[in-house]
Amino acid sequence: METITVKPKTTLPAKFYRDADHYARETEHFFGRRWVCVGRTDEIPEPGDFVRKELLNESLLVVRGKDQKIRTFFNSCRHRGTQLCQEEKGKFKGAIQCPYHAWTYSMEGKLTGAPHMNETPGFKMEDWPLHQAPTEVWEGNLFVYLGRDAEPPSLSKQLGPMEHKFDNWRMDELRLGKRIVYDIQANWKLIIQNYSECLHCPVVHPALAKLSPYLSGNNDPAEDSMLGGRMSLHEGIKTMTMSGATEREFLPGLDDEQKRHVYYYALLPNLLLSTHPDYVVTYTIWPLAYNRTRVICEFHFHPDELKKPGFTAEDAAEFWDLTNRQDWEVSEWSQKGFESRAYTPGPYSHREGLLYDLDRIVTAELGLN
Amino acid sequence: METITVKPKTTLPAKFYRDADHYARETEHFFGRRWVCVGRTDEIPEPGDFVRKELLNESLLVVRGKDQKIRTFFNSCRHRGTQLCQEEKGKFKGAIQCPYHAWTYSMEGKLTGAPHMNETPGFKMEDWPLHQAPTEVWEGNLFVYLGRDAEPPSLSKQLGPMEHKFDNWRMDELRLGKRIVYDIQANWKLIIQNYSECLHCPVVHPALAKLSPYLSGNNDPAEDSMLGGRMSLHEGIKTMTMSGATEREFLPGLDDEQKRHVYYYALLPNLLLSTHPDYVVTYTIWPLAYNRTRVICEFHFHPDELKKPGFTAEDAAEFWDLTNRQDWEVSEWSQKGFESRAYTPGPYSHREGLLYDLDRIVTAELGLN
Amino acid sequence: METITVKPKTTLPAKFYRDADHYARETEHFFGRRWVCVGRTDEIPEPGDFVRKELLNESLLVVRGKDQKIRTFFNSCRHRGTQLCQEEKGKFKGAIQCPYHAWTYSMEGKLTGAPHMNETPGFKMEDWPLHQAPTEVWEGNLFVYLGRDAEPPSLSKQLGPMEHKFDNWRMDELRLGKRIVYDIQANWKLIIQNYSECLHCPVVHPALAKLSPYLSGNNDPAEDSMLGGRMSLHEGIKTMTMSGATEREFLPGLDDEQKRHVYYYALLPNLLLSTHPDYVVTYTIWPLAYNRTRVICEFHFHPDELKKPGFTAEDAAEFWDLTNRQDWEVSEWSQKGFESRAYTPGPYSHREGLLYDLDRIVTAELGLN
Repeated sequence: METITVKPKTTLPAKFYRDADHYARETEHFFGRRWVCVGRTDEIPEPGDFVRKELLNESLLVVRGKDQKIRTFFNSCRHRGTQLCQEEKGKFKGAIQCPYHAWTYSMEGKLTGAPHMNETPGFKMEDWPLHQAPTEVWEGNLFVYLGRDAEPPSLSKQLGPMEHKFDNWRMDELRLGKRIVYDIQANWKLIIQNYSECLHCPVVHPALAKLSPYLSGNNDPAEDSMLGGRMSLHEGIKTMTMSGATEREFLPGLDDEQKRHVYYYALLPNLLLSTHPDYVVTYTIWPLAYNRTRVICEFHFHPDELKKPGFTAEDAAEFWDLTNRQDWEVSEWSQKGFESRAYTPGPYSHREGLLYDLDRIVTAELGLN
Repeated sequence: METITVKPKTTLPAKFYRDADHYARETEHFFGRRWVCVGRTDEIPEPGDFVRKELLNESLLVVRGKDQKIRTFFNSCRHRGTQLCQEEKGKFKGAIQCPYHAWTYSMEGKLTGAPHMNETPGFKMEDWPLHQAPTEVWEGNLFVYLGRDAEPPSLSKQLGPMEHKFDNWRMDELRLGKRIVYDIQANWKLIIQNYSECLHCPVVHPALAKLSPYLSGNNDPAEDSMLGGRMSLHEGIKTMTMSGATEREFLPGLDDEQKRHVYYYALLPNLLLSTHPDYVVTYTIWPLAYNRTRVICEFHFHPDELKKPGFTAEDAAEFWDLTNRQDWEVSEWSQKGFESRAYTPGPYSHREGLLYDLDRIVTAELGLN
Repeated sequence: METITVKPKTTLPAKFYRDADHYARETEHFFGRRWVCVGRTDEIPEPGDFVRKELLNESLLVVRGKDQKIRTFFNSCRHRGTQLCQEEKGKFKGAIQCPYHAWTYSMEGKLTGAPHMNETPGFKMEDWPLHQAPTEVWEGNLFVYLGRDAEPPSLSKQLGPMEHKFDNWRMDELRLGKRIVYDIQANWKLIIQNYSECLHCPVVHPALAKLSPYLSGNNDPAEDSMLGGRMSLHEGIKTMTMSGATEREFLPGLDDEQKRHVYYYALLPNLLLSTHPDYVVTYTIWPLAYNRTRVICEFHFHPDELKKPGFTAEDAAEFWDLTNRQDWEVSEWSQKGFESRAYTPGPYSHREGLLYDLDRIVTAELGLN
């Protein structure tokens, strides 16, 4: 007779959270070789509008061209590397001009002027367009690919079953109502792990537990770029606000089940999507160091609501800001604990399955399985 | 006929003071594999009392159990690593609870509660106690061993001839009267070296030279974990205070010779012990970087004195604070000089024998002799 | 028939601007093994006068001896390494004394006192003079050699054709009128490159373009330690000030051509020399990190002018301070752009020949050609 010893699945070794070299390698894989969400198209509604984004120490200019197409340029002149633009956002008036020697590019990235270079033998304008990062739009969300491959991978393939899952929310129609930026002293994966289980909710989020039963979570099987599921709302609760009530209409297009649930999905590597019956929250995750992460949290509403007199995003924002801060605090304590020499991998409960799935996705991507 | 050239003994090569890798290796040996003094038992007099200590980037919870025994726990939950406690000191009310998922530990470190883990196959509470660092008490001083060996070495053996040398001071009876914390931009060894010779006293400490003849030093032969000796007091000087006088009684138990001397011992790696006729000063040394060290200086008095109306520690503290600051300043200048590319080992005088002994202890421990 | 494709010369690979290891190696070559300008002799006019300089994390004491000779000492006692002096400048009164154990050195660097060392077997005073860095003076400019070789290379050889080029300006007679110190977030080479072309002048320096035609530059062929040339002044412009006018006399000794031009020379590694008809500006360059550089900008005038009632350096200083700040700003943007992962070497115009020359000097010195 044979005895089989079952052991709990455990957390990752310490280096995944505290080693600067590992961090560089891991973020290079997940942020340098996957499509990364950098914001929303409604940040740059008109031709010439641009926004500057800082991703993995890289300065990017996301620009809407005269042809309405959105392109992302590395913020570096082809002449002597100079950063072209220091503004966080704004509008280019017909051209992008380098402040050093006045090299000039079209808003589509072509070099159109380079003073005195015509006297330089062998110089051809067409050889020196701005370096570009492939850019795609999904449901109003902007995705950029930082890798320098000739041919980028498919965003559609990366999104997988997520591509059409949120059709009913018509996210591309929604508009920004509120933005909150957080700087967190924790590894980027700890943000996603914290997002992927509600076992901590009764301890950490008493206010949340009043709106949504913490054991109501129902997760989809994880995919290579997706972790998530949904939770139901308590009877009498219409949405996630401090009071559980709202004067906002449900988002048009939702079915009855969608009106009674909040959906929480992590679209790896860096978009967390929380859809509510009447608004959508996106969190984009920006790693800064192995123990430091920026999170940009945005609240998106239906334009009809935004136009109503007396519209406010604060009822939703106040609730989530409170909840987020509670999450960041425990994530920071987690980070510190992972840095202990005594740390050894700990046991996941069966309610932390998505965390184990994330760990496997990370180790597989790094060839460490 | 043969000529023998005698050369002076010299200081260590520069890397011992300015190389980050060497620092990591050296502190791992001296602070990671030796018993380290982290404070005094009277900081946590009652069951449940705890104090948090940061040693080599490690957060430690030193806790007095219900059984009065003092234990040191790594401040990291066995579930997902989370730091259990952010307070500097306080009292646990019967249990230590993780703020993330409410895992609960007894004050002796056993896991007593882990919500929902009972549903996880293979999970057993007894497998996940808090990680513990061996802890011992000597004369009221708390020693912790950070190494992760199965069996820690003997503290008694480390103390060697020091173990009973201070019996007459009855240090375990003394109580804290004053604490001063210093942050010093110098290598940890420079603090000990400065402590181990008084050749600098006439230049650096004019006030000290008035109380104690700087050439009166009389050192014991060095041991692997001990460097030190004693100095006498000038005639008419009762103790080390700004005036040289005190209203405090001599510590009970001292013999006549002990009442006329101050004893200065470095108990390696990190406890400096200055015993006076009427009080004891401890300095604990906490390395922070190759060029940065924290020193916690504490003044301990007989409880009868502490109870007297009008008791003050300031006469002793004022004198030593002045002297300490003079020492830290020259130690910082020494640190800067060791960082010069022109630095070459310099000659020790015969009055700096303990410094050479310390150097030999360090090189021997690192296998560099 | 053969087709030859001409390609423009291009900028250096990214590592020359963003790699900490490369930076250490490069500065060790250029600042550790070449003569470096650290200031002017008129900073220390009298015996005993000293000035402390920080070069490559090295603290140096430049001292005028009783014999009027200027020597540079490493600021580190030969006993236990202690920094001898914390003051930025001052006057030694007959001796240099260590603040730790009172070792005393003559102003020529000889050890003259070492308390209690006479009791130490084998100790001889003459064995322990201060470590010295070779020091030479050229036209009032102080040059120091940090290398620890037995025999330093020849400064005269390093200066090459520069040695007598500025004879007419009689720079050794000039005296300091104004100093401005800048901290710049850019690699040290970017400062020199910016100095070595005026193609950016119409874009970056509208005020300068009014005084001096930006295409009037006429460069000498580059040497191993020299890059430079001259630009003419617009008709009616007497010198570089905000107004283009000045009440100062021309420097005595200049010929007619020298009165109508400004000469801009980079004397590698770190002295930029801008000679004007009536004053001379020196910039010394002090690398602090691969992306950080200190520049000390000084304005030197004829002593007759300095003595005149109502003398001011501000007309010249105001103009160059404005221009410098414009230059540092674009240099910082260049630095940021070189740090982009998308950066690839860009094409130099034929008006940026000196920049290409500098790049070749650097790669040759590092054996990378």
